[in-house]
Amino acid sequence: MRIVLDAMGSDTSPEPEIQAAVEAAELFREEILFVGPEDQLRARLKAFGKAAERVRIIHAPDTITMEDKGVKLALKAKRPGAKNSMAIGIDLVKNGDADAFVTAGNTGGALATAFYRLGTIRGVERPALSGLFPVKNGYCVVLDIGANPDCKPEYLYQFAVMGSVYAQKVLSIESPRVGLLSNGEEAGKGNQLVKDTYPLLEASGLNFIGNVEGKELFAGEADVVVTDGFTGNVLLKSSEAVSRFLVEVLRQELMGSLRTKAGALLAKPAFASLRRMMDPGEVGAAPLLGIDGLVFVGHGRSDARALVNGVGVARQAVEANLLEALRGAIQTRLEDEEYMEETTTWK
Amino acid sequence: MRIVLDAMGSDTSPEPEIQAAVEAAELFREEILFVGPEDQLRARLKAFGKAAERVRIIHAPDTITMEDKGVKLALKAKRPGAKNSMAIGIDLVKNGDADAFVTAGNTGGALATAFYRLGTIRGVERPALSGLFPVKNGYCVVLDIGANPDCKPEYLYQFAVMGSVYAQKVLSIESPRVGLLSNGEEAGKGNQLVKDTYPLLEASGLNFIGNVEGKELFAGEADVVVTDGFTGNVLLKSSEAVSRFLVEVLRQELMGSLRTKAGALLAKPAFASLRRMMDPGEVGAAPLLGIDGLVFVGHGRSDARALVNGVGVARQAVEANLLEALRGAIQTRLEDEEYMEETTTWK
Repeated sequence: MRIVLDAMGSDTSPEPEIQAAVEAAELFREEILFVGPEDQLRARLKAFGKAAERVRIIHAPDTITMEDKGVKLALKAKRPGAKNSMAIGIDLVKNGDADAFVTAGNTGGALATAFYRLGTIRGVERPALSGLFPVKNGYCVVLDIGANPDCKPEYLYQFAVMGSVYAQKVLSIESPRVGLLSNGEEAGKGNQLVKDTYPLLEASGLNFIGNVEGKELFAGEADVVVTDGFTGNVLLKSSEAVSRFLVEVLRQELMGSLRTKAGALLAKPAFASLRRMMDPGEVGAAPLLGIDGLVFVGHGRSDARALVNGVGVARQAVEANLLEALRGAIQTRLEDEEYMEETTTWK
Repeated sequence: MRIVLDAMGSDTSPEPEIQAAVEAAELFREEILFVGPEDQLRARLKAFGKAAERVRIIHAPDTITMEDKGVKLALKAKRPGAKNSMAIGIDLVKNGDADAFVTAGNTGGALATAFYRLGTIRGVERPALSGLFPVKNGYCVVLDIGANPDCKPEYLYQFAVMGSVYAQKVLSIESPRVGLLSNGEEAGKGNQLVKDTYPLLEASGLNFIGNVEGKELFAGEADVVVTDGFTGNVLLKSSEAVSRFLVEVLRQELMGSLRTKAGALLAKPAFASLRRMMDPGEVGAAPLLGIDGLVFVGHGRSDARALVNGVGVARQAVEANLLEALRGAIQTRLEDEEYMEETTTWK
């Protein structure tokens, strides 16, 4: 198996990536394709001696940065022969020289590069950014968390299909419970998009559990939650912001008195576990679902451990034949729809 | 000043309401109009003796419950001569017999009853549910948090105007900073609604600070944040759910070992302050902005303290002439628009 790791992704790249490339190659006992500026990477990898033997550098002199956007980003993503690490890394996947690409870089950049270079799975209307939310007793796959600010019911329907396949194949959940994010649990609640999506999910044959709110999501009552990319992004970012705010308030309160300062010291391990649980690095990276190739995006704040986990998740997806499963699921749905249309016409 | 308190609102009504009515009458040294089933209330108020003297019961044999919805709810809200406590309480405001109505009951019920019986302020396209979010160093007024799942740019523009007036008059913020909730801080980010609303807010003369994400909201960088009622409701409920989830995780972690159990005991006061801060009762209640009368809705989980705070907030709004200020602000905007249209036609 060949996983490509973007050396120039994370906010503090390439240090965490270098550490991660060496560790992942060691851990998985397999070569890591490591895309970035060769001279810079080679010099730093030297320090690891023999441990870096299985890290194969693929030269990419250019980088897509967190600041790239708009036309400039589109050009970097699209141009044939582009020399940035995302374009070169994703081309390796496209040409069959690698099985999956992992980056902690600019999410929009990864999406644009993947979209232009790999295209979407046949029949997929829109690719989605997925995210794994830490919830009670596990994780919940939420999509879309930002690729498509405006969605149609058909997009959300396909997100549900793809999210279910991902949860089955990679998270090993036999019959993933699919929820539709809404402003009320009852059927009939929602904005127009939710109201129009509900019957599609109800008739989908998926394990659709109906509308869910934040309560059900964080209580772990759904394995997959679908929403438009605007709401999903607001959900993601506000959840992160609330967590940070709460921990900050508690920290200050704990420091407020000598008595509680002692308490804080004693309670430290609990805070450490909480941080670990909320840490995006636990999960590593999440796939761009609907892209015709395996591309995983991690948090910009990823450290080496997060990146190694990202490589691990990508490996699981390759092993589980995620891409084939997604193609199959979408294809089956399309054929069903065509059949439905034909039979409807006959009547 | 005459404030009406709904005796039958909260999840555990009427106990917290009875306690609150007595306390509020005492605290503010003024009569409280207390709407609910007379016999039941009178019997329980007796226990308070002289302290209950200033609580004036207004008989309302019927109740809008948390389960009421759809046509049944609409009928209870709309019907002339309806005998539920919301309808009777709001009619007191309508007829000038009271200055404001406070309830911890069914939010949709309060909105429907207020809408049918009081109508909207002239020129207001849609009334909004507002919520006060605890954020760093204070509170942020967020609207709409659920009245209008699908919005037009003009609605959001008016929410911004009304939210600003509320922040000025009741929260005493001279020039409230208004943010537009989006999936990115940069101008140009957003779904179609946000993109179309942005220029309206930019040209509004309000202290518009641009798009905001959860990060800015919880960091206290905006005093007012506007969004559609679907996204606002998801934001509200997921923030509550994340908070509860985090506190639960910390509690379990703290109980995990003897060492941290001691820590938990010592850290208890910090948790207590956190709970107090996140407690919806701190704020008491938030107004239905755009309704042509002062109606405040508190959390269903309100206790007596929350309800007293709710009465306090309503009193502040009456004292500050909130309704007149809202009417004036909307009227001025309408005249400006008419003037703009006229002058544009002349060209």
